[in-house]
Amino acid sequence: MPYVNIKITKTGATAEQKAELIKGATELLQRVLNKNPATTVVVIDEVETDNWGIAGESVTARNAKPRP
Amino acid sequence: MPYVNIKITKTGATAEQKAELIKGATELLQRVLNKNPATTVVVIDEVETDNWGIAGESVTARNAKPRP
Amino acid sequence: MPYVNIKITKTGATAEQKAELIKGATELLQRVLNKNPATTVVVIDEVETDNWGIAGESVTARNAKPRP
Amino acid sequence: MPYVNIKITKTGATAEQKAELIKGATELLQRVLNKNPATTVVVIDEVETDNWGIAGESVTARNAKPRP
Amino acid sequence: MPYVNIKITKTGATAEQKAELIKGATELLQRVLNKNPATTVVVIDEVETDNWGIAGESVTARNAKPRP
Amino acid sequence: MPYVNIKITKTGATAEQKAELIKGATELLQRVLNKNPATTVVVIDEVETDNWGIAGESVTARNAKPRP
Repeated sequence: MPYVNIKITKTGATAEQKAELIKGATELLQRVLNKNPATTVVVIDEVETDNWGIAGESVTARNAKPRP
Repeated sequence: MPYVNIKITKTGATAEQKAELIKGATELLQRVLNKNPATTVVVIDEVETDNWGIAGESVTARNAKPRP
Repeated sequence: MPYVNIKITKTGATAEQKAELIKGATELLQRVLNKNPATTVVVIDEVETDNWGIAGESVTARNAKPRP
Repeated sequence: MPYVNIKITKTGATAEQKAELIKGATELLQRVLNKNPATTVVVIDEVETDNWGIAGESVTARNAKPRP
Repeated sequence: MPYVNIKITKTGATAEQKAELIKGATELLQRVLNKNPATTVVVIDEVETDNWGIAGESVTARNAKPRP
Repeated sequence: MPYVNIKITKTGATAEQKAELIKGATELLQRVLNKNPATTVVVIDEVETDNWGIAGESVTARNAKPRP
């Protein structure tokens, strides 16, 4: 019955990639803690880059800056 | 001041149903723990079926399979 | 497969009361959205009163004040 | 490495205001606990007013009522 | 900058197993979405069995029942 | 009615510091979005260093390493 929540910025993860995250997280819980995949819940939240901050700035602002 | 977060798949819950969930969750906290409804917060998150996994698969993939 | 998270202050909720919250939340999702109880997950977080703030103060501080 | 999650109703917060929340939350953690801004994550969730309940009602329903 | 939250019941996961979950979740995000491990945050919450419900019952209650 | 959740590692934040975080977060929401402090909820989660991972390692493991 584990519950896994994965939060990522909304930058185009495909359905296949999200399916891969779900599969991988479920296998990880089974391998490490022998948890039953049938009741392992994985929820992926995709967050707008205006709404995700790191180092005091939104990802939108950081991405708009020229890379060093 | 309880905070209740209800996560469901995004499969068409109506505004009336969501209002019912809010009402029911608030009444539950009042009945069981005598919590003050005026400061009980309920937040409902509706998650795309690509983004919700159970048994290692997305709900989208599971729903696409013929039922046994 | 709904996931319900109930956050309350850690002020002595008994095992019976928490069982009642679990039962009530599961029944609510079944009644309103016909969700399957077998895969409805309910997690209760009990938070120290130093760690819960309302109106800019911790619950510990508010409880220490004489009631009007 | 603090993680700050700010949930607000989806009522038109601008990109500038959200940048201000990110900046302010990061500075708060640095000022009070000397946390490193470079690894402070802030995520803002904007929730539809149908999906946010207070005092047993959705914000949509409360906002529809004439103010006393 | 992904944020991964893993909630499991508090039933004796060792420090080594939790380190394995952290490593595995970080590698999963890197492999599938090419996310930078250096800013991938993983938080594990261990929940008392009285506080985790499935099928309308606490895990404590379910574990107390004789297995079929 | 904003809800702010601050997750930090459990490394000795005092009651006064936590009160300062609650006060600061509430003032931030009031200043930036004119939110009512009376219904602003702040919850602080303190996480064991075994349970917090960054760059694929637990904070416990990282802290045990000699600093460069």
